[in-house]
Amino acid sequence: MTDSMSRLVACFRSLPGVGAKTAVRYAYSVIEKDEESAQEFANAILDAKKNIHFCPECGNYTEDDLCEYCRSRDKKTICVVAQPKDIAPFEKTGSYNGVYHVLHGTLDFRNGIGVDDIRIKELLARLVGVEEVIIATNPDVSGELTASYLAGQIKPLGIKVTRLAYGISVGSEIEYADEITLQRALSDRKEL
Amino acid sequence: MTDSMSRLVACFRSLPGVGAKTAVRYAYSVIEKDEESAQEFANAILDAKKNIHFCPECGNYTEDDLCEYCRSRDKKTICVVAQPKDIAPFEKTGSYNGVYHVLHGTLDFRNGIGVDDIRIKELLARLVGVEEVIIATNPDVSGELTASYLAGQIKPLGIKVTRLAYGISVGSEIEYADEITLQRALSDRKEL
Repeated sequence: MTDSMSRLVACFRSLPGVGAKTAVRYAYSVIEKDEESAQEFANAILDAKKNIHFCPECGNYTEDDLCEYCRSRDKKTICVVAQPKDIAPFEKTGSYNGVYHVLHGTLDFRNGIGVDDIRIKELLARLVGVEEVIIATNPDVSGELTASYLAGQIKPLGIKVTRLAYGISVGSEIEYADEITLQRALSDRKEL
Repeated sequence: MTDSMSRLVACFRSLPGVGAKTAVRYAYSVIEKDEESAQEFANAILDAKKNIHFCPECGNYTEDDLCEYCRSRDKKTICVVAQPKDIAPFEKTGSYNGVYHVLHGTLDFRNGIGVDDIRIKELLARLVGVEEVIIATNPDVSGELTASYLAGQIKPLGIKVTRLAYGISVGSEIEYADEITLQRALSDRKEL
């Protein structure tokens, strides 16, 4: 394998779930593209890296000052998710009109991820005027722990705290939930 | 989704076998990389596209004047493959010391791919001094047709023409053959 090829294969291998053979296939496919497409691929990576930053309010990715949801949505409800990629499934349901808050992780004391390592402080700082906080972390140990911790912090402030109903199956990941299940889980959300 | 994100997702979707969800996962993973890794990814694409070209003798990819095999191997035996990616499995067997010839396709008259559309002319032009041509196209209709055609052209020149033994299973692809099967197929190759 040539040097340039090895470097490109290594880059593809750094993507989630990509093994050696798949990385080689991807690399060949890039080499087989025309000049313009390869250039666009490289530019798309650099532009995404350069233009996309965290929304200062909710922590979602955005190219603007505020993200599209913080600019236009009802701020009386905040849906708390672990990662930016967890937002898309909610948008697909078409049944949520509030804003989001991205924690960028969940509490995981065994792995040294504590209260100050995720965006909890930022969430607590934006609760003025908020009527409900929906906690939509994954239904696993770390997600549940985070939900309990947040409920303990937020309920004393007189704000309603809800958790998605167990329409989502235990052990699964929100990123991959289908729209119907997630819609059900949204409408059945229960107070903590 | 932001513009930069959509563009990056579109690029990943252009890779073989990558659907919408996988493309989004890849794009997020790129955004989450540090500045330097994203830069290296973009450079790797551009460098591969710029530096890698076809070896003028065999049609394999190379960064040098001649590819690594054409520079150092016994030129009395040529192994004919459809694509550059079909070379790696042979190298892994460790039991082939000849050179290669990459056709960049196989005959497929129904889809308008004829004798002049793949590198057959170039193969016929490099047969001086060659003792054996091993035809290693995929064991499918188009691969078999190409093998027969080549045998018909090359045997009259007094050169031995062989085909990989059917150790490789019919309907499969050489790119994914395991080393043992392919080693067997190499040693059992039979004259056409």
